[in-house]
Amino acid sequence: MAKTAAIVLIGNEILSGKVVDANAAYLCRELRALGVDVKRIAVIPDEIDIIAAEISAASRGFDVVFTSGGVGPTHDDVTIDGVARAIGMRVVRHPRLVALLEDFYRDRGGELTDARLKMAEVPEGAELIEDETLRFPGVAVRNIYILPGVPEIFRQKFDVLKERFRETPFHLVCVYLSMPESTLADYLNALLARHPDLLLGSYPEFSNPEYKVKVTIESKDLALAESAAAELLGQVPSAAVVRVTRG
Amino acid sequence: MAKTAAIVLIGNEILSGKVVDANAAYLCRELRALGVDVKRIAVIPDEIDIIAAEISAASRGFDVVFTSGGVGPTHDDVTIDGVARAIGMRVVRHPRLVALLEDFYRDRGGELTDARLKMAEVPEGAELIEDETLRFPGVAVRNIYILPGVPEIFRQKFDVLKERFRETPFHLVCVYLSMPESTLADYLNALLARHPDLLLGSYPEFSNPEYKVKVTIESKDLALAESAAAELLGQVPSAAVVRVTRG
Repeated sequence: MAKTAAIVLIGNEILSGKVVDANAAYLCRELRALGVDVKRIAVIPDEIDIIAAEISAASRGFDVVFTSGGVGPTHDDVTIDGVARAIGMRVVRHPRLVALLEDFYRDRGGELTDARLKMAEVPEGAELIEDETLRFPGVAVRNIYILPGVPEIFRQKFDVLKERFRETPFHLVCVYLSMPESTLADYLNALLARHPDLLLGSYPEFSNPEYKVKVTIESKDLALAESAAAELLGQVPSAAVVRVTRG
Repeated sequence: MAKTAAIVLIGNEILSGKVVDANAAYLCRELRALGVDVKRIAVIPDEIDIIAAEISAASRGFDVVFTSGGVGPTHDDVTIDGVARAIGMRVVRHPRLVALLEDFYRDRGGELTDARLKMAEVPEGAELIEDETLRFPGVAVRNIYILPGVPEIFRQKFDVLKERFRETPFHLVCVYLSMPESTLADYLNALLARHPDLLLGSYPEFSNPEYKVKVTIESKDLALAESAAAELLGQVPSAAVVRVTRG
């Protein structure tokens, strides 16, 4: 079984259409390349109870959970409170984060106000993930990784974490066909009946001049993916096969 | 209270990073412009039980639910089955959809196979939404609107539906400020304390030369949004105000 992941995006600005999220699609691609199976994405508002419920379910249901957004100094930054409530821990100021904020604002001649100290808060028991590429460390607690919404910083922090999650990769064969999906369906059903563990996808194109369906055949077992692809290619009319790619 | 909505995207191809969804962001913008408050987006796999659980919760928790994806002729198209299970109804072939498919395949000299007839299936009691702009009608059951994943067709079908959902619009004032978010936080907390019903957002920019924070002040009550904006503008240093927009 592949390691499973859930992604929780926290932010009214996504739900109200003001901002288009880029972090979930990025994380899906990155985690897939690492061999991790993303099973769920949820986009929820900046509300502590809703965050707590979502994170609690995700933390119990999946091997690893990533959050994006809701960390910062203002009233609508409540992800830390929500995660803490999800796991039944208090919110505490982390001394290492307080020290880093003191240094940061001293260098800039600013004051360490309560609003700024909010950025030192973590759920009790949290781990800091430090790296020379990061101005402020990443924060994790149990199997929950708390990432910021700003895409550039999100990616910096994930880059530092990613090798923790690498495992057996998925092997993917894509078969592009010029036959309609409704004609192909019986072949795919038969293939899946023979190989129930195969990850089999079928994606029609309605205005693509090159092909009509892209079939994705995928498994962590390379031999299974390749033999299933060979079976399909042996059964569909050869004139319908446009091309085959692997990756 | 604004009418609330949930969006459920169904498709392994999104979770595995093969496809970047465009429908949720589109729908968030469209629904916001209609005055509808999107409260939740979930992206889930092509699995009947998971779809049923998600749709059941969304249908009970929100005024209206939109699904995207998982309608078609192949094994991984199980949205109809999931929605039917969510509401405790059987899956039936809709006679009007069977007739439309018969016409469609007769015109093309094709056969109406079982796989193709799958596209005539609906949860029992479903409503068809016909329009001259649509080749095949939209499908709705109770408060659940079942839309296809292909963005072009998704938009065609939503365009036909959208006037059903129009209500009082949100009034939005955006204030762009050159002060850091951590300095602004106290002003925003005070504003929210005076107007707990205000929708107040604060979005920092880290490498934007023009401004440091965009504050969004929003309400269905135009007078409330405008008076709150006036209060904020009266309190922050006037030199920090870059510009104000409305829309």
